[in-house]
Amino acid sequence: MKDAMQPLDPSFEIRVRGSFSRQQFMRHLGAELVSILPGVCEIQVPFQGDLTQQHGFFHAGVSGAIADSAAGYAAFSLMPADSSVLTVEYKLNLLAPARGERLVARASVIKSGRTLKICSADVFAVQQGEEELCATMLSTLIVLVGRPDA
Amino acid sequence: MKDAMQPLDPSFEIRVRGSFSRQQFMRHLGAELVSILPGVCEIQVPFQGDLTQQHGFFHAGVSGAIADSAAGYAAFSLMPADSSVLTVEYKLNLLAPARGERLVARASVIKSGRTLKICSADVFAVQQGEEELCATMLSTLIVLVGRPDA
Amino acid sequence: MKDAMQPLDPSFEIRVRGSFSRQQFMRHLGAELVSILPGVCEIQVPFQGDLTQQHGFFHAGVSGAIADSAAGYAAFSLMPADSSVLTVEYKLNLLAPARGERLVARASVIKSGRTLKICSADVFAVQQGEEELCATMLSTLIVLVGRPDA
Amino acid sequence: MKDAMQPLDPSFEIRVRGSFSRQQFMRHLGAELVSILPGVCEIQVPFQGDLTQQHGFFHAGVSGAIADSAAGYAAFSLMPADSSVLTVEYKLNLLAPARGERLVARASVIKSGRTLKICSADVFAVQQGEEELCATMLSTLIVLVGRPDA
Repeated sequence: MKDAMQPLDPSFEIRVRGSFSRQQFMRHLGAELVSILPGVCEIQVPFQGDLTQQHGFFHAGVSGAIADSAAGYAAFSLMPADSSVLTVEYKLNLLAPARGERLVARASVIKSGRTLKICSADVFAVQQGEEELCATMLSTLIVLVGRPDA
Repeated sequence: MKDAMQPLDPSFEIRVRGSFSRQQFMRHLGAELVSILPGVCEIQVPFQGDLTQQHGFFHAGVSGAIADSAAGYAAFSLMPADSSVLTVEYKLNLLAPARGERLVARASVIKSGRTLKICSADVFAVQQGEEELCATMLSTLIVLVGRPDA
Repeated sequence: MKDAMQPLDPSFEIRVRGSFSRQQFMRHLGAELVSILPGVCEIQVPFQGDLTQQHGFFHAGVSGAIADSAAGYAAFSLMPADSSVLTVEYKLNLLAPARGERLVARASVIKSGRTLKICSADVFAVQQGEEELCATMLSTLIVLVGRPDA
Repeated sequence: MKDAMQPLDPSFEIRVRGSFSRQQFMRHLGAELVSILPGVCEIQVPFQGDLTQQHGFFHAGVSGAIADSAAGYAAFSLMPADSSVLTVEYKLNLLAPARGERLVARASVIKSGRTLKICSADVFAVQQGEEELCATMLSTLIVLVGRPDA
């Protein structure tokens, strides 16, 4: 497994940040790519009223979107330079109300196959600096070889 | 199963539409509640650049968000007047690029227990009037009794 | 989608039945391959005490095993002659106690891609001839090309 | 979260072991309850030909069954004395062939609510004493209060 977590593309960070910047939906959410390391990605989104469900907390759709993007980029960091990444599927468990000044999704690759990458992601709601686990995801991503992202 | 699909609250449509209108995130996406029947809900969202991923199609997060809301309101339509609904978990399979002028999520309750409702939802991308199935969801919702939504 | 459901291998039934007969675990459960059509498979297992959980009903592990095998063979029926099938992942919702004289799993391919097949499966408990839906599955299978099953 | 992991029933181990011994399906698989602690459970099953799929490895149904039981008992250890546990749903990702002399499932509760418990479980294939992660599960269990297991 160790070797599988070595990036095939030394410029993976530039590639991931470029792709993220082209996801207009992430911008629409106000999401930021906090960090990208081989097989690991963190994305956060500050609170705003536009992102809430009927009780005034972050909508589960926001948790799902940033966890999915974080998992996608954790996987993409390990893919070849000329490839794209697609989410095949994910499962999200909502564990607590997503209440706070921001949401943070942290994803990591738990199995890096040649074609498929399996990732897990946790989403934390940060309230007065304290993190509470509010959602957890298990997802499957596929490499599209020979189809550059840009 | 038949009886389980009878609404406990004859005013379920008003209750569901009120809750939907308080989901600011749905408005931020430009989503509309197309229809709500006992155990069945349809939500759609017209295309706009703000909702895209890096290839210019609808972001999977949008599919996930409207499918989750449609499933939630399909379930909520069968719940008592003084209750709230929470998503416990969902699984989403992405089947095709979500390309088109709008996305439509159609959800229905497949098992209506007293505490838990199990729903399935399909998401279609509509391109020049033709629908293509682009995602499918299986989800679990819980009733919070004695905690009105509003 | 229609064309995607055409079998690539006209001898798919022989290939599927051969593979099923090599799954010793299916024999250990007493499971039978009822039918296999392009993209559709049915497997059943008669009740025996050996298959029960602590309340005397079929163990969820039995529902999961036959639904997974039915989904796998529904997918495998559409794969080339020289390929194998692997389950990537599945999600199973348990909807009612699996009580009865037999369990029947019916699976079908809902999206047949070249590399991945997405399937759904329903499991019914048959009691005095009446079927009750007791579980539903959504799963992802992968084709291993050039690696015959036998 | 800490307090939520305190067992409500000091005799939880006797209760869990009693329930496990009534799961005839676990015996049919040759499965053993290795250990049960508050919110944590380990179950293993030695290899036998009866448990194999068509390539001679452990069938995914075996991984699913012991992971589900381990998650169920991890959750049940935190439930009141007069309750039962039911699996609501689970998702299983298969990460590597389950090849070896035994399979070990280790489950733990990641969120212990009053009604629902969310668990994760990893399944390892042990080959010549070396463990390889071969599957991972995320699952939801429900407490049935006032309905003792026995």
